[in-house]
Amino acid sequence: MKLLKKSKILIVGLGLIGGSYAAALTKKGYQVYALTKEEESIEFAKAHNYIIDGKTKVDEEFISSFDIVIFSLYPKIFISWMKEYHTYFKEGTYILDVTGVKGSIVYEIQDIIKNDKIEFIPTHPMAGREVYGVQNAKYDLFIGANYIITPTDKNTKEGIELAKEIGSILEFKNISILTPEKHDEMIAFLSQLTHCIAVSLMTCKDSIHLKEYTGDSFRDLTRIANINENMWSELFLMNKKELLAQMDLFIREFEKLRDAIESDDVKTMKDMMRLSTKRRSYFNK
Amino acid sequence: MKLLKKSKILIVGLGLIGGSYAAALTKKGYQVYALTKEEESIEFAKAHNYIIDGKTKVDEEFISSFDIVIFSLYPKIFISWMKEYHTYFKEGTYILDVTGVKGSIVYEIQDIIKNDKIEFIPTHPMAGREVYGVQNAKYDLFIGANYIITPTDKNTKEGIELAKEIGSILEFKNISILTPEKHDEMIAFLSQLTHCIAVSLMTCKDSIHLKEYTGDSFRDLTRIANINENMWSELFLMNKKELLAQMDLFIREFEKLRDAIESDDVKTMKDMMRLSTKRRSYFNK
Repeated sequence: MKLLKKSKILIVGLGLIGGSYAAALTKKGYQVYALTKEEESIEFAKAHNYIIDGKTKVDEEFISSFDIVIFSLYPKIFISWMKEYHTYFKEGTYILDVTGVKGSIVYEIQDIIKNDKIEFIPTHPMAGREVYGVQNAKYDLFIGANYIITPTDKNTKEGIELAKEIGSILEFKNISILTPEKHDEMIAFLSQLTHCIAVSLMTCKDSIHLKEYTGDSFRDLTRIANINENMWSELFLMNKKELLAQMDLFIREFEKLRDAIESDDVKTMKDMMRLSTKRRSYFNK
Repeated sequence: MKLLKKSKILIVGLGLIGGSYAAALTKKGYQVYALTKEEESIEFAKAHNYIIDGKTKVDEEFISSFDIVIFSLYPKIFISWMKEYHTYFKEGTYILDVTGVKGSIVYEIQDIIKNDKIEFIPTHPMAGREVYGVQNAKYDLFIGANYIITPTDKNTKEGIELAKEIGSILEFKNISILTPEKHDEMIAFLSQLTHCIAVSLMTCKDSIHLKEYTGDSFRDLTRIANINENMWSELFLMNKKELLAQMDLFIREFEKLRDAIESDDVKTMKDMMRLSTKRRSYFNK
């Protein structure tokens, strides 16, 4: 399926990410509606021309009027929603999500759907801000960011193409395809581990009185220490096995450096720093 | 002593920091000279109007012509230099430095000097870049950054005032006074620990192939993983006791979070995240 200007798109969950999807898709000329908990979010999104209209209650007639439905909910709420209402979609509907963990939800959602005329294509837009809600949504949130599609053998070529097209419309820089498992390993390392480090760095010492001595390094490492505890604790537990593996990998390496310092092992220290510098150079934007 | 436009200032070590001191002081109308290893650095600094002139060889007549001498050398080289040439300064000279560790050098340097007509006021400008050398110097490197003076009982009110004045001329935002010991504890936590984390994060896994999935968090946490191994291994070892204490503090906290995730202890996870968010809010610029 090719995304058409006349396709009707529903965003379920009008928060920061859902709101930014709505804002960006509307700006590009698509027809966007919303389903979300708070009337206030609908009013805000309408007033800012992010959506044509929206509802706060699930309603079969409404749900079945859409060609594409994009879920921007917490993982567990997404699963419950699907269990309860999956029969409301019309045949031919394409469903996407924005969930940050994949292995523990992708197969379950695809199993829930049953109907093989309805396709769920799992996607993960790797973008965010330290603020929440549709009030902080931005149509340009995804420009230059990374977008990952994690299809299974239940997905069709058309479904995957549609997900890619949405990624292009939102102006992601890299659009990649990974298995749900590879995605989760990668996300455990790049995103979840880094959040665990930032949180621990912030909580291990009362550093508030150190504010006037803080250079950029402490600020950089703790920017993401401003964290939504409900969302992140859920994401951590839904990816527990991989996250623990990456945390243990990091602890071992950190202790290697610690022990090198303790024993004046300058060679190990310098070897690590050289490798670090070399690898980091590949990440310069 | 009040810094006068006719005071002659010598920068010893014309690298990134020494070069930026020279550029900033010259821009504000002071008379700046340099002593450094490479003729090329002198030529570059002269061509860019960072200095009036410079030398690559230590020479008593030259050294004794300055009112203020600012050392921007690696700690151990600074100590060796002082041991060899400390008799070259004229009486009344004020000596400053930019060294990132204090306890292990401040007392030693003050002891080396012997002559109580020559005063060493230890200072630490908390600024830097991931690039090196006078070629990357910037007159505005210190604007908005933090500047710490770590005097001992050998310092005079006048000496400390002079160090503050230089901090103001360079436009540091916060100029603070700490004991060498408090400075080292603080720097172990805010700067050295964060560099150890960044290095370990970069070396624990070959992440180069993960480049296209990397969000901002991994980039933020590893920006400082591009590290000068000679300088930092020296700084780490010169502050070993404090650095190990801060590393151990961090490991314990990180393992607390790890264990909470392993045992589905959502309360501990959320408590840590809430505290983290609360503390981090004080650091928003």
